Amino acid sequence: MQITDIPRALAQAAQLLTEPADMAPYLRDWTGQHQGTALAVALPRSTGEVQALVKACLSEGIRIVPQGGNTSLAGGSVPGQDGPWIVLSLVRMNAVRRLDTAARTVTVEAGAVLQALQEQMYPHGLTFALTFGAKGSAMIGGCLSTNAGGSNVLRYGNARELCLSLEAVLPDGSVIDTGAGLRKDNTGYDLRHLLIGAEGTLGIITAATLRLHAIPKVRATAFLSVPDLAAALAVLNAVQDETAGAVEMFEYMPAHATELVMRHFPDLRCPLDAIPDCGILVEVASTSSQDAAAGEDGAPRLNVRVEAVLERLFEQELILDAALAQSDAQREAMISLREHVLESLMAEGRWQQYDISLPLAQVAAFLDHLQQVLPSGVRSHVIGHLGDGNLHLSLMPGAEDAIVLSERVYDLVLRLAGSFSAEHGIGRSKAALLAARKDPGTLAAMRAVKAALDPEGIMNPGAMLT
Amino acid sequence: MQITDIPRALAQAAQLLTEPADMAPYLRDWTGQHQGTALAVALPRSTGEVQALVKACLSEGIRIVPQGGNTSLAGGSVPGQDGPWIVLSLVRMNAVRRLDTAARTVTVEAGAVLQALQEQMYPHGLTFALTFGAKGSAMIGGCLSTNAGGSNVLRYGNARELCLSLEAVLPDGSVIDTGAGLRKDNTGYDLRHLLIGAEGTLGIITAATLRLHAIPKVRATAFLSVPDLAAALAVLNAVQDETAGAVEMFEYMPAHATELVMRHFPDLRCPLDAIPDCGILVEVASTSSQDAAAGEDGAPRLNVRVEAVLERLFEQELILDAALAQSDAQREAMISLREHVLESLMAEGRWQQYDISLPLAQVAAFLDHLQQVLPSGVRSHVIGHLGDGNLHLSLMPGAEDAIVLSERVYDLVLRLAGSFSAEHGIGRSKAALLAARKDPGTLAAMRAVKAALDPEGIMNPGAMLT
Repeated sequence: MQITDIPRALAQAAQLLTEPADMAPYLRDWTGQHQGTALAVALPRSTGEVQALVKACLSEGIRIVPQGGNTSLAGGSVPGQDGPWIVLSLVRMNAVRRLDTAARTVTVEAGAVLQALQEQMYPHGLTFALTFGAKGSAMIGGCLSTNAGGSNVLRYGNARELCLSLEAVLPDGSVIDTGAGLRKDNTGYDLRHLLIGAEGTLGIITAATLRLHAIPKVRATAFLSVPDLAAALAVLNAVQDETAGAVEMFEYMPAHATELVMRHFPDLRCPLDAIPDCGILVEVASTSSQDAAAGEDGAPRLNVRVEAVLERLFEQELILDAALAQSDAQREAMISLREHVLESLMAEGRWQQYDISLPLAQVAAFLDHLQQVLPSGVRSHVIGHLGDGNLHLSLMPGAEDAIVLSERVYDLVLRLAGSFSAEHGIGRSKAALLAARKDPGTLAAMRAVKAALDPEGIMNPGAMLT
Repeated sequence: MQITDIPRALAQAAQLLTEPADMAPYLRDWTGQHQGTALAVALPRSTGEVQALVKACLSEGIRIVPQGGNTSLAGGSVPGQDGPWIVLSLVRMNAVRRLDTAARTVTVEAGAVLQALQEQMYPHGLTFALTFGAKGSAMIGGCLSTNAGGSNVLRYGNARELCLSLEAVLPDGSVIDTGAGLRKDNTGYDLRHLLIGAEGTLGIITAATLRLHAIPKVRATAFLSVPDLAAALAVLNAVQDETAGAVEMFEYMPAHATELVMRHFPDLRCPLDAIPDCGILVEVASTSSQDAAAGEDGAPRLNVRVEAVLERLFEQELILDAALAQSDAQREAMISLREHVLESLMAEGRWQQYDISLPLAQVAAFLDHLQQVLPSGVRSHVIGHLGDGNLHLSLMPGAEDAIVLSERVYDLVLRLAGSFSAEHGIGRSKAALLAARKDPGTLAAMRAVKAALDPEGIMNPGAMLT
């Protein structure tokens, strides 16, 4: 494809990259599994330029994939291989338009990098609470378009819950603003929530007004042994009640996960005398200066509060054993154990990863049934954000066909009313799965909405909906 | 209209009321401002019957208005006066299908009355936190279809935030379930949020899985005098931080509101020596047994915590004076003052009421500018849920035309990026306002979505979209 094939309206709308070497990083996703082609990579600097690009593409029948940090795990952020495409990168739109420290909101452009935004908020005593591994590259527009989750969802919600309003360019080239960060606004259909999680198939998010939270002043972290998952949920509720819902982390660490990490990282120790069959890593974070102040024994009062509830739960036999971190070093050692699971897994070979969620009441049933549906010889490994019902399941198939294995896992997930994509979305990698597994009424409604808002099919076709 | 005009498929789908006397209460809204006509009132007992009704209406071109408690303030819950209609009342679908006390969720049918649901949850130590004046009649389906707010929104969110998933019948007769109460599910467009707040124009909500919360064990309530609204926001943030976001009430009570109530209810006293120009009623609710336990002076420890932060704010001159309730009687007296505002207003004559919201940073500017745009002789009165930016403005026009007055208020609200319907929705009463005031891009997108999901226009036409 020659640069002369670029329609003039497109070339005038924003700066374009057209050299293959310049475009290469925008055309391949970071898992390396998805690679597309494009006429150009457009680098707009303003919402007006995004609008001009959309109008030019609409009139020329050119497909658009909006792209942020390109850290998607589902292949939704790179173009397909058929038809003329542009990548519309938001990388140059990264300004903080307005910070309101009293209302605790920030209006920021879609290309702002998640971690950079967090760092800009820290001097004000505030943080944007969404956080996950790719935060150094992931951009706000992508976080919202994929409804990103991460490790704080239990307390602060997904990206969806942290967004008060959006500015977006719709496929017809109109610019909308869904409400300037209002807390309450009942004037029509909620286009904000329709665009969030739509993976760029219904329009391009150009800016958002986000909720900020005060930075916690003190944390209390414990590693628990509990009798079973039902007890774990009771423990979660009790700790939530005693701390007004301040639990940030509630991670399921079965014995095989703790053993795995200790095998690969011999310096890491289990904080309890015996490795628990059903281990829980729990962390509470408080914004209260009273909780941060030292109590009678010199420890922060938050520790005293958490210790009291753990003692009560021990008496109720909902906890078998517990270690409450008494220092930053102890806290880091506990968290380290959880954080080294993925690396330890990778050292054991190549796993098939599943990003699934279940109703909380079905997590135990899922784990029970899983053993029955797995062919013998398949190694399985599971950890999870238990408070969200979100499990990270890893399977290592033997001779068994990987596809057959996936079908069995998804059959079981759906039988228990779970989700086959809890956090990572659909993109191109699960579009066929969605088409096969989602109920026909929902699929028909999704396709009708897509056709209504994007009748020419220019917005990221092939992602999410096939 | 004769009963013989009822298509057979409709009559077979569910029990119908067709006698004018039986139908009357379903055809008129409780404000008395909206009155429609209908062939029949259908009383389905199951989702299957709702589905059969929708299919019958679709094939016969009959319009449907779904109805819950019929307590809407915007006329969206009664039929129009043109064309054949049925009222589809959810009143007989009020079962609790599943209560999960560990996950703290309940799956309940759309016809469950809000207060009845709350009372069913209390024995389990749980509550459905949405609450407002009409709770004794309002039903869950209507609460969700209108995204109801109320007095707890600051802490628990609107109906939208309290809903994990929906079962609904779409206009094509398909039944969908948006996710069985999953915390995390990124598998497609969020039809849940599209149906919530759609006022029955995109489908009929038949059941929902809702979040439950632990019942607070102790409350601390205070009446404050603060220098201005900026100080009020700083106070709100400080109290939130010290209580992990446990503020349930943060009500703006300007001097004219306090004076008005004391004039009409001479037994009610201002808790402070002098009536504050800028008064704030704040209430914190804690689920912690430690907060509920008595401290050294016999008062609950929550009071001690709140007192400490109020003292600090007093030293910072963010609070001028404060009264912290020391008994249930004192607490009730404070809350009584706020609760008698509406009744006191009504005693003064007929007011035009405005349900508006503003970005928090613009509330003060709105109140300043309001005086300038009001014609002389117009009495104005304002109170509000300050933490949400939600103001309840009442105006008593003199000779001035009421319509002109509304235009001026809405001009000002929109100039400050506010909302002309914070809580009550659009219905039939504000459909023309929405058509005139919403931006063209959003309106076009809303109309496209409506046409895509309801091409025959059978679902509550005339409500929301004209």
